[in-house]
Amino acid sequence: MASSFVRNGKKIVAIGRNYAEHIKELNNAAPKEPFFFLKPTSSYIGSGGKLEIPRGVIAHHEVELGLVIGQRARDVKQADAQSVIAGYALAVDMTARNVQDAVKKKGLPWSTAKGFDSFTPIGDFIPKSAVTNPDDLRLWLKINGAFKQNGTTADMIFKIPRLIEHITSIMTLEEGDLVLTGTPSGVGPVNPGDQIECGLTTASGDALAALNFAAVQREGGYSFQA
Amino acid sequence: MASSFVRNGKKIVAIGRNYAEHIKELNNAAPKEPFFFLKPTSSYIGSGGKLEIPRGVIAHHEVELGLVIGQRARDVKQADAQSVIAGYALAVDMTARNVQDAVKKKGLPWSTAKGFDSFTPIGDFIPKSAVTNPDDLRLWLKINGAFKQNGTTADMIFKIPRLIEHITSIMTLEEGDLVLTGTPSGVGPVNPGDQIECGLTTASGDALAALNFAAVQREGGYSFQA
Ligand SMILES: [Mg+2]
Ligand SMILES: [Mg+2]
Ligand SMILES: [Mg+2]
Repeated sequence: MASSFVRNGKKIVAIGRNYAEHIKELNNAAPKEPFFFLKPTSSYIGSGGKLEIPRGVIAHHEVELGLVIGQRARDVKQADAQSVIAGYALAVDMTARNVQDAVKKKGLPWSTAKGFDSFTPIGDFIPKSAVTNPDDLRLWLKINGAFKQNGTTADMIFKIPRLIEHITSIMTLEEGDLVLTGTPSGVGPVNPGDQIECGLTTASGDALAALNFAAVQREGGYSFQA
Repeated sequence: MASSFVRNGKKIVAIGRNYAEHIKELNNAAPKEPFFFLKPTSSYIGSGGKLEIPRGVIAHHEVELGLVIGQRARDVKQADAQSVIAGYALAVDMTARNVQDAVKKKGLPWSTAKGFDSFTPIGDFIPKSAVTNPDDLRLWLKINGAFKQNGTTADMIFKIPRLIEHITSIMTLEEGDLVLTGTPSGVGPVNPGDQIECGLTTASGDALAALNFAAVQREGGYSFQA
């Protein structure tokens, strides 16, 4: 079932501010412990899909390593974290940055800013056996052929076992759930008409995943007024 | 499938600040449009279950009317909103109030404050045919036999069609998803050892749902430090 997580998974738990250079670029405070938000699985689009940007929204790309959960997991210790991961996926945590800025000022939830339809482009399931060292993978994102993000999971502030321990101390993870592990620096806007390509490779450059999508203006639906 | 929404549903979309007296009691600003947050379905417990309160957490009860979604729904107009609702459920949106107060000040997500395991006690599925007027139902909650909340859905600021229109302009609702419609006034703490009873009735007092649970201290897991 983990391999069909896009269709059958129930939740997406996304970690914020897990790369120091990304924290600096948004002038955010570094967290003392991991924190996360939820994205709905209705926001998934597969490779080749269309990212729909609602009217008035400044949509930022955040390329991230996803962890696909393989079994029910509650109160998992760091030493046991690898055992609950079935595999990985390359993902983009699309973010309505101006909506997020507005709700942050008011102390309101991030759910709209992070949860629009099509705001989680997602690559194929990568079985755990294909990844020797998840703490040393390269993640990149290009818009119209130009590099925008090019980071390494070696720069995560809180490593994967710590993330799993933290999340499962609060909420049970289930088979097919996805954990997004945060984005390296280089985030910025995606505009209608843009072509986005992302890749995940080993440290030595062997491809593990590719993910491509096109940005379009969303017709109808929500419109953001500042 | 809607009748098995607790087991098979994917998301819970919960509206905040939808009753004027509740907004006043928490000294919050009244919203100009509806807003919502996501709760994980891993937070459901059925009637007779145990609410586990994590260490250091002040857990508040919020009794709410739930809408069970019957079909995929995107960009639904108010006039069509009833057609996407399969039924109703009585729910409690348990909230870690001190965690929520802390994240609101920092502009951080509400997901932890709202998403702990067991923080969504949920009653049985009520088919739509059993409810003549969802805008005139009585909701109540007692702790150890004493009334704490006793409100009516007639006092909702944003009515059900408006909530469905707003949510589906942002994210697609799917069969088995639950929408929580906000809580009337009277929220307050639940402590380990408390027995909680809730009810949903018609305006004339006919019972539509009952929901009971016991609060216990959670062993292990998360601990909140202010
Ligand atoms: Mg949130
Ligand atoms: Mg992110
Ligand atoms: Mg509530």
